[in-house]
Amino acid sequence: MSPTDSMFLLGESREHPMHVGGLILFTPPDGGDAPEMRAAFDRALGEPDADPLWRRRPVRSLATLGQWAWEEDEDFDLTHHVRYDALPTPGGLDELWNLVSRLHGTLLNRDRPLWEMHLIEGLADGRYAVYTKIHHALADGVGAMKLLRRAMSADSDRTDMPAPWAPVDALVPTRPERTSRALPESVIGAARTVASEAFGLVPALTGTVDRAVRGRGGSLSLAAPNTVVNVPISGGRRCAGRSWPLKRLRAVATAAGATVNDVVLAMSSGALRSFLLDQDALPDRSLVAMVPVSLRPDKQCSGNQVGVLMCNLATGTVDPVGRLTTIREATTQGKDAMRGMPTVSRLATSALGVAPLAVGMITGNRALPRPPFNIIVSNVSGPAHPLYWNGARVDAVYPLSVPVDGQALNITCTSTDDDIAFGLTSCSRAVPRLEPLLDRLDAELDALERAFE
Amino acid sequence: MSPTDSMFLLGESREHPMHVGGLILFTPPDGGDAPEMRAAFDRALGEPDADPLWRRRPVRSLATLGQWAWEEDEDFDLTHHVRYDALPTPGGLDELWNLVSRLHGTLLNRDRPLWEMHLIEGLADGRYAVYTKIHHALADGVGAMKLLRRAMSADSDRTDMPAPWAPVDALVPTRPERTSRALPESVIGAARTVASEAFGLVPALTGTVDRAVRGRGGSLSLAAPNTVVNVPISGGRRCAGRSWPLKRLRAVATAAGATVNDVVLAMSSGALRSFLLDQDALPDRSLVAMVPVSLRPDKQCSGNQVGVLMCNLATGTVDPVGRLTTIREATTQGKDAMRGMPTVSRLATSALGVAPLAVGMITGNRALPRPPFNIIVSNVSGPAHPLYWNGARVDAVYPLSVPVDGQALNITCTSTDDDIAFGLTSCSRAVPRLEPLLDRLDAELDALERAFE
Repeated sequence: MSPTDSMFLLGESREHPMHVGGLILFTPPDGGDAPEMRAAFDRALGEPDADPLWRRRPVRSLATLGQWAWEEDEDFDLTHHVRYDALPTPGGLDELWNLVSRLHGTLLNRDRPLWEMHLIEGLADGRYAVYTKIHHALADGVGAMKLLRRAMSADSDRTDMPAPWAPVDALVPTRPERTSRALPESVIGAARTVASEAFGLVPALTGTVDRAVRGRGGSLSLAAPNTVVNVPISGGRRCAGRSWPLKRLRAVATAAGATVNDVVLAMSSGALRSFLLDQDALPDRSLVAMVPVSLRPDKQCSGNQVGVLMCNLATGTVDPVGRLTTIREATTQGKDAMRGMPTVSRLATSALGVAPLAVGMITGNRALPRPPFNIIVSNVSGPAHPLYWNGARVDAVYPLSVPVDGQALNITCTSTDDDIAFGLTSCSRAVPRLEPLLDRLDAELDALERAFE
Repeated sequence: MSPTDSMFLLGESREHPMHVGGLILFTPPDGGDAPEMRAAFDRALGEPDADPLWRRRPVRSLATLGQWAWEEDEDFDLTHHVRYDALPTPGGLDELWNLVSRLHGTLLNRDRPLWEMHLIEGLADGRYAVYTKIHHALADGVGAMKLLRRAMSADSDRTDMPAPWAPVDALVPTRPERTSRALPESVIGAARTVASEAFGLVPALTGTVDRAVRGRGGSLSLAAPNTVVNVPISGGRRCAGRSWPLKRLRAVATAAGATVNDVVLAMSSGALRSFLLDQDALPDRSLVAMVPVSLRPDKQCSGNQVGVLMCNLATGTVDPVGRLTTIREATTQGKDAMRGMPTVSRLATSALGVAPLAVGMITGNRALPRPPFNIIVSNVSGPAHPLYWNGARVDAVYPLSVPVDGQALNITCTSTDDDIAFGLTSCSRAVPRLEPLLDRLDAELDALERAFE
């Protein structure tokens, strides 16, 4: 196991689970229903084979000189990993997020391969939900989402599709020449997009954060204010999500000469501002977001040229358009500044998980005098076309991230073809209720739309 | 916090959760159904007050000199502790035990008071299930069951009963003179039946085990065979249970001149024998059970005079009656021997939890050359009359215990007025399937009945 991977095992505790998660909502195909979705999974479970990636477990023994290593789990038992769940009445999204929050807040069993997939029935609206939990030592957030996506199809008519955990040969039937059972390197790359830079990661991130801050002209350098979300965390989690039509964000972006990502940041800024105002806890100084950005879009699984920038969220500004304007300037300047810098290969792909941990390790876990930033806001764009699994449409994918000490709230977005999904993950003690934040994200998008009408 | 209590926090890890559990099955009152049970809990949750016992959480800080201490959780949030769950289709006992196994296999959140109560709907047979999980630092198994029982009533017509977590004043309305909000000592006593002997516990248990073994004449002294259930354990749990009419066990006991407890041991012996035979893993030497026994039955909450005895389970004997005879002799001799010994006050009440941990601490956690015994079989008799909560009858109470390294399977029994419930708890890696053991317990009772027809 690489030192980066084992870092996530060594750094883990009951209060700091190191797994990423994703909640997928499926709309059953026309004429189908949730029980048929479940039947499709029943059939998939009837084939107990799984890809080697999903069958390896961490071990540490005298034979490995006390270091964490991977080995195939000889007692691999799919029923430990793939589980049926159900929602209590009335089966609404509240019940779904309650369940997902609890599932996201417990540690994976280290004696087994480090993943779980929960097949959730009982949504009153007829949809079917799948929550997946993958340890960071096995896959980071982007890698996990890519693995899930690879199991989907753009073809709504395709049936008899294998399970997402099926051997990669089964998932990629168009390449019959691949007969080896060994895991191809490309898959390992997809799963661990930040794997091999290992030793370099933490210093590299420190350097990147420093450069990003200096790149902004130094006015904000490591001087984000303390807020109620920049506190030590507990072991409980709250997760929640909501989706908005991408075209709404695109229209605001176009009107403001900004990017969709700027609108995501402006929504986050407005939501955080009113959330903190309501608690009489809005600092005078503006909140700062750490934003992973892609510098050279690249369609390949790994090897993106990316960086992070520190974005002034202008939370002191009353006018929503004023906040968006400041944010647009900050991200533009930040990207300009970064263009002149050596970038850290594949770093932004860590946005869904590596970064928070690494930041915790850089800044020390507790008693932080000032956080270098207040919140990580990541936005990873998804596929341009709808995805299906055995005819069921992927309605939304909510990414769920890893809060760490000092960063008790994360905002992570990803898009399907026509919607953008915001996934919020928090420490349940620091931020016990996420619904108000979702309502405020919604109100902020409304306000921006009205301003540009 | 007493040193004994904190021992359960210090000794805990992902692989060794230190909580006890109990699954209660309720039959709704005539004319009622499971949704009405849920409505009763909804009403109980509408009153967010909880007894101080349930509101304290463990803390360890500079102020406590690094020692674990209790403090009231100022952000106490009942919704963290009391949770609605539901069973996936088809809503059978398999689905129930799958859920309970998973709930029993995750660590409690230490940042909160150390308990959870799961209100489980979706049983196709119309019943309602409640799984309760309590950290051993808060209450041992017997104490937890007493707390739960106290919230029930012998009166099937009583309604408007408070929640099990309600302040004790509300639970005991017949004693209006108790107005203080402070927790009476008697309740603390009930919750932690083994609290105060603290430092003495482990040496006392060592001594008791030694005496028990010597009391048997030394032929088995610390020479139980190694078996597949005496192995290091993982963090996963399997839980399962089944009930039998007490009168069936009583009839066999009467016919054999034995006690109900002897029949429990004989059923366990026969089940273990065929379970191990099927795996071609039955040792030549007979398995040894550690059995907590009451020496002087005492109706009070605490202060029972009890001891443990080592019982030859005669697993090498083919004939079920032969096994029961050997067991009856072993328990009779063991009790006779113990009568001449100094007994350890209140020790057997630890049977649902303290003992396994203490044994682990005595014998060392890993690489045990020979286990001092193979399995703990506890049987705690319950109330002589049926219990109700808001008219719903307590159908069964399955106690769920704490496997430890070297003791990967526990058998814990408790009775309601007319049934005896066997609760099995195992490490899911060492003993992944418990249903075969339950079937064998059933077959063994059948065989004993046939033998005495």
